[in-house]
Amino acid sequence: MKKQISLLALLCSASAYAEQAPKNIIYMIGDGMGPAYTTAYRYFKDDPSTKEIESTVFDTILKGMAHTYPDDHTYVTDSAAGATALSSGHKSYNGAIAVDTDKKPVKTMLEIAKQKGMITALVATSQINHATPASFAAHNESRRNYDDIANDYIDNKIAGKLPVDLMLGGGTKYYIREDRNLVAEFKQAGYQYSDDFSALKDIQQIPALGLFAPVGLDFALDNNPTRLAQMTNKALELLDKNKKNGFFVMIEGSQIDWCGHANDIACAMAEMDDFAKSIEQAKAYVDKNPDTLLVITADHSTGGLTLGSHGQYKWATEVVKGVQATAVKLTKLMSESDDLKAIWTANTNIEYTPENQLKLEQAKKLGEKPLNLAIKDIISRASFTGWTTGGHTAIDVQVFAHGKGAEKFIGSQNNTDIADKLIGFIEQ
Amino acid sequence: MKKQISLLALLCSASAYAEQAPKNIIYMIGDGMGPAYTTAYRYFKDDPSTKEIESTVFDTILKGMAHTYPDDHTYVTDSAAGATALSSGHKSYNGAIAVDTDKKPVKTMLEIAKQKGMITALVATSQINHATPASFAAHNESRRNYDDIANDYIDNKIAGKLPVDLMLGGGTKYYIREDRNLVAEFKQAGYQYSDDFSALKDIQQIPALGLFAPVGLDFALDNNPTRLAQMTNKALELLDKNKKNGFFVMIEGSQIDWCGHANDIACAMAEMDDFAKSIEQAKAYVDKNPDTLLVITADHSTGGLTLGSHGQYKWATEVVKGVQATAVKLTKLMSESDDLKAIWTANTNIEYTPENQLKLEQAKKLGEKPLNLAIKDIISRASFTGWTTGGHTAIDVQVFAHGKGAEKFIGSQNNTDIADKLIGFIEQ
Ligand SMILES: [Zn+2]
Ligand SMILES: [Zn+2]
Repeated sequence: MKKQISLLALLCSASAYAEQAPKNIIYMIGDGMGPAYTTAYRYFKDDPSTKEIESTVFDTILKGMAHTYPDDHTYVTDSAAGATALSSGHKSYNGAIAVDTDKKPVKTMLEIAKQKGMITALVATSQINHATPASFAAHNESRRNYDDIANDYIDNKIAGKLPVDLMLGGGTKYYIREDRNLVAEFKQAGYQYSDDFSALKDIQQIPALGLFAPVGLDFALDNNPTRLAQMTNKALELLDKNKKNGFFVMIEGSQIDWCGHANDIACAMAEMDDFAKSIEQAKAYVDKNPDTLLVITADHSTGGLTLGSHGQYKWATEVVKGVQATAVKLTKLMSESDDLKAIWTANTNIEYTPENQLKLEQAKKLGEKPLNLAIKDIISRASFTGWTTGGHTAIDVQVFAHGKGAEKFIGSQNNTDIADKLIGFIEQ
Repeated sequence: MKKQISLLALLCSASAYAEQAPKNIIYMIGDGMGPAYTTAYRYFKDDPSTKEIESTVFDTILKGMAHTYPDDHTYVTDSAAGATALSSGHKSYNGAIAVDTDKKPVKTMLEIAKQKGMITALVATSQINHATPASFAAHNESRRNYDDIANDYIDNKIAGKLPVDLMLGGGTKYYIREDRNLVAEFKQAGYQYSDDFSALKDIQQIPALGLFAPVGLDFALDNNPTRLAQMTNKALELLDKNKKNGFFVMIEGSQIDWCGHANDIACAMAEMDDFAKSIEQAKAYVDKNPDTLLVITADHSTGGLTLGSHGQYKWATEVVKGVQATAVKLTKLMSESDDLKAIWTANTNIEYTPENQLKLEQAKKLGEKPLNLAIKDIISRASFTGWTTGGHTAIDVQVFAHGKGAEKFIGSQNNTDIADKLIGFIEQ
């Protein structure tokens, strides 16, 4: 009996293998999106008036987890080393943009895709030359060299061609400079250019470059709650029309991390919502185009977020849902107004108690930073949200996959394994 | 082509299904073991003098994650509601021991296994009538009714028989009482009894009862670092001899949670090590007995543990590894001695700086609790370990599985789904 089963198992796995290389790859990275964020998002989206707790899109496609440590024994990565591992399969040092520990360039999956004649794209809510997208199409010893990284998107020729056919994100500050006007160069190279998000629909061709903010786009909570989902939609529409040789796109939920650094839970949940809506679009695309693989992961977790704090067995989602602006925006509003109560009650459902009033008024006297911290402290305490750091933590992150080849991502793996598997598909 | 593949896929899944019901089930629960604990354990075990970061036993068998929320919208479970979900497939209220929200008993997988004629066992490092094991073989509206729960291990007859054939853990305080001597009753029912851990090897039959402490066993870090692994070994040896109709055993790493509540990282890592060694034994048993399924999960995460804190991109494992005693024991030693420095330097590799000296001396003057907190604060800060609560958090936990039917646990699931899948196997 055992032999027969082994033979069938062999047949089954062989048939799966021959069939598993996808034509198109959608790679999505939630920057800073550790497992506390996806759990939080499920409960944030839960309707407490119904008995059921509904599943999120993340719950439908979980496959495994990944180890995020950089190439040393600190165990805690930054976004540059994390993205380098996820783009190239090489562990490196914190700060590295697709270079190894000797600062030598390492080949990225986007570059390999370009060599293979695939259409390539990068989408982010940060500046498009920020650490994560940068590690797919540029090489630099430091993530801080923003101008050099932007230059690489023109200068890093792959078989005589520019590396990225479509870029949507922020960053005009780095593209239109005194020493060099990259936008003019991209136009000369045939790229359609836009810096107007409201005209996103008018981008009708590839190659194209959309830069919708001087640096990063506004926080989802403060302005457009679906700007990543809209860019995702546009990117998939354009890629679908140009997929003769397949496409590779990396889509980053960049600012989950920024809200995490700020320890701003309402900010983080709005970013998660925009990212989840983007994933829903990508998943729907895969369902219509089953020769496509969707892989989603995070580079690390940010802020040491925990759901429950100070001994309370509760995470108060109604408090988080009630917050209508980021702490950055609330700080600005309160700094410019004498009626703190009006701003507080218009933007939160937390009672303006004498204690909270005193805390905010005293903090405001000390300056914008203390005021910002006081606002977040009240929100975190009222919602029983815990934070331990303004930086990153070492916890493993989740790996989600859907479509052709998704089963390759089941189980525990290194972040570099994710890259190796995707590069394996691209090279086939 | 598509039709042919579908047919083959059907064949493959059908052959897998017919073959997938295991004869024996080893169910292991790491109480409080959220994903930060398994990640921490990998880095805790890493040898920083080698380039590689070795995988742990957890990494080899990760299958998915589970949602732990209780039957309300607080989202944060306790161990009783968590264990009730994991034993019966029913969400209930915090405190519930295998009863539903109406306080009516719900059938557990151990009871179903007993009905089916399987041998049943419970192993824990807590008292054996603590919330997690209790929720498999007793029913009570409150986890705090320890005496009633212990009584149930005699009184909760399944088809005229006692529910649990083998129990190894702590709890003499609850078994030998003025109002009732359960140990005498178990002996009369034919159970071999031992209260001497050093004579564990002498337990040679099932049924048997081993109670090796008045309440919980000592912390792994303070006394026997492998007491759970040794009990696991003994349980598997006895069950293997009595497996004619199959066996069901629940093995709990109970005190991971207790160290988490205490925010004591060295304590937690020693408990993780004992639990991991127990898993290695169970995994080896499955490899020798492929008709066996091993499933491992946690009921929730405890303490809001994070690896990295206060903005530092580092988790300092060498500090954690250097701590030779729990904060409970260090507090006792320091309370009884005038030479704090000698105790500190003998039990940690953290420098006894004037700042640490002042902190410990001042705390000691205030009493044992402040001294205990000061000890842990110094260790947490030196190792960049973050904590947010003395209670639990809502983060999803991991699900590990190995052996026959393990693939059923791939992906995201509710904690109740784990129970439903296992009950499905037992009922087949
Ligand atoms: Zn970051
Ligand atoms: Zn607990």
